[in-house]
Amino acid sequence: MKIQSVITGVGSYIPSVVKKNSDFKNSVFLNEDGTPFEYENEVVIEKFKAITGIEERRYASDDLNSSDLGYFAAKQAIEDAKINKEDIDYIILAHNFGDVKSNSIQSDMLPSLASRVKFRLGIENPNCVAYDILFGCPGWIQGVIQAEAFIKSGIAKKCLVIGTETLSRVIDPFDRDSMIFSDGAGACIVEAVENGFEGILSHAAQTNTVDECYYLYFGKSYNKKENQDVGYIKMLGRKIYEYGLNHVPLAMKSALDKSGIDISEVKKVFLHQANEKMDEAIIKRFYRLYKSKVPKDVMPMSIYKLGNSSVATVPTLLDLVKRGKLENQEINKGDVVIFASVGAGMNINAIVYRY
Amino acid sequence: MKIQSVITGVGSYIPSVVKKNSDFKNSVFLNEDGTPFEYENEVVIEKFKAITGIEERRYASDDLNSSDLGYFAAKQAIEDAKINKEDIDYIILAHNFGDVKSNSIQSDMLPSLASRVKFRLGIENPNCVAYDILFGCPGWIQGVIQAEAFIKSGIAKKCLVIGTETLSRVIDPFDRDSMIFSDGAGACIVEAVENGFEGILSHAAQTNTVDECYYLYFGKSYNKKENQDVGYIKMLGRKIYEYGLNHVPLAMKSALDKSGIDISEVKKVFLHQANEKMDEAIIKRFYRLYKSKVPKDVMPMSIYKLGNSSVATVPTLLDLVKRGKLENQEINKGDVVIFASVGAGMNINAIVYRY
Repeated sequence: MKIQSVITGVGSYIPSVVKKNSDFKNSVFLNEDGTPFEYENEVVIEKFKAITGIEERRYASDDLNSSDLGYFAAKQAIEDAKINKEDIDYIILAHNFGDVKSNSIQSDMLPSLASRVKFRLGIENPNCVAYDILFGCPGWIQGVIQAEAFIKSGIAKKCLVIGTETLSRVIDPFDRDSMIFSDGAGACIVEAVENGFEGILSHAAQTNTVDECYYLYFGKSYNKKENQDVGYIKMLGRKIYEYGLNHVPLAMKSALDKSGIDISEVKKVFLHQANEKMDEAIIKRFYRLYKSKVPKDVMPMSIYKLGNSSVATVPTLLDLVKRGKLENQEINKGDVVIFASVGAGMNINAIVYRY
Repeated sequence: MKIQSVITGVGSYIPSVVKKNSDFKNSVFLNEDGTPFEYENEVVIEKFKAITGIEERRYASDDLNSSDLGYFAAKQAIEDAKINKEDIDYIILAHNFGDVKSNSIQSDMLPSLASRVKFRLGIENPNCVAYDILFGCPGWIQGVIQAEAFIKSGIAKKCLVIGTETLSRVIDPFDRDSMIFSDGAGACIVEAVENGFEGILSHAAQTNTVDECYYLYFGKSYNKKENQDVGYIKMLGRKIYEYGLNHVPLAMKSALDKSGIDISEVKKVFLHQANEKMDEAIIKRFYRLYKSKVPKDVMPMSIYKLGNSSVATVPTLLDLVKRGKLENQEINKGDVVIFASVGAGMNINAIVYRY
């Protein structure tokens, strides 16, 4: 019988510190060249909200690191899947900055965050292999694709895939874009199931580097009085917007066409929560590729309250919908859904999945 | 016909700066508690050499970062495999600290080092997916195992697997163990080949975290006058030695037994170059598991001149042997070899391979 990779449990951790847009009203925002902004902060924040949709975002409390967030999400996913944690063959953990302690500028990833989560979960089985992947914001989806590879090649039967990030620890407070970023973690259990019905139907993944390699990069503060040797997350917002629009719908289409599923059967699209306007433009262009209109409620959104937590957005969104925590959003048995993301690398991926 | 994962090309980069043991004679070595050493540096260095075998090691020049080293090794591996770089489906890059610029304490891995290498190689194919893995010193071997998973599951046909590291940028000069670590990079091309003879025969991988999670960790300088918030690579040497001895031979045996190959057929063991005495003890115990003696020249060693360059040791060693650069060492068609490693995580792995 055909073996499918099935998501049997989901979990997430939403950090406790609420940072509202109004909390930025006394920020000193500068242009890249260090000159002050032309507009008042109130105007900057209003414009920011209109484009990104973000009203508030979550930061991890000072005592927690990225691996702690990942552990909380992982624990919930294991409970949700009702499996014995000792049966997990692989722990795949996606992040991009490691554990960055509060008020520190160093990334700590020795040992890997996956090892730290395994340690905290108390898993004793030495054959449970734990490693980290770095793949920009699409890292969690890529982790699920890797779980699929291990399952299809007979290397694993049960994988724990985690995405966790504390972007609040790597932002330049003088950069307006810092308002986009947030902290969070999501996780799922992917299991080999012999039923040939539910599970991953197809996937697509791409890395574009010719022009795009440094659209997201580690760069210096816009405040020239700050130590210019210290790196922060930086982005070329307009270029990323155009890139996302031109590439993500095509990757989604490539995956959907491979699956043989008709566009009318797609019930949900879980898109990386990068920016509301960009996400809306992407979904519109995706449906236009099939000469269709975007169905109502097809794209659940969490960005308004959670911001862009990198690798954590998609599993967190899935967890919120599965637990009935987003209005007018649910998944039913048999539903076909798409997971898709775009981010640093530049990387893009998409999975077509049947529940 | 059976599809096998075959290494069709190898490359490495040996950094240009030679750091001899005598260059440490004016170092100030301290105990973990900050107290001075009981012995003179000459004695410390002599003892160090007797245990580790290391006479000198290589550091990258100040203008180069880990991703540059990885690029040099990758370029050579592609040339060696005689493939079109645009045909590569996956770039898997193993490291543990990202790009750490000379005289910097930050890890830069945005975008991933795999993306940077793809960019420098000038690969235009967007379907060549590039990501990083963190798995301690065994990261490069784990990358080869992941390439095998992609090939066996039909996701990829050609993978570039790179291991690169600049440990010289993360060492505490007041810690005697800093003498062990070095810089380097190695790479290979793994291709799907339909012949059912040569290629990967079996593998094993483990992660031990219950007691072992922090045997290698990111810790503060032994000099209490240094900024105690800055992290450096630190290790519990004695515990790692015992761990390696107790676990690596068993993992190698597990892989060899899975392959169905008799111990007498094993022609070479490419073991992570961690420490000469440890490597010798591991190989001895491995053969003892089969009630055999260690054959002459079965274990090529490069640690004397290259030190421990983490993920880079195994592919560099393979490259040196393949190019006839190590005395009395060669691989011939049909030879069965074992690749094995141990490191932060704590992680262990082994691959049984037929040339």
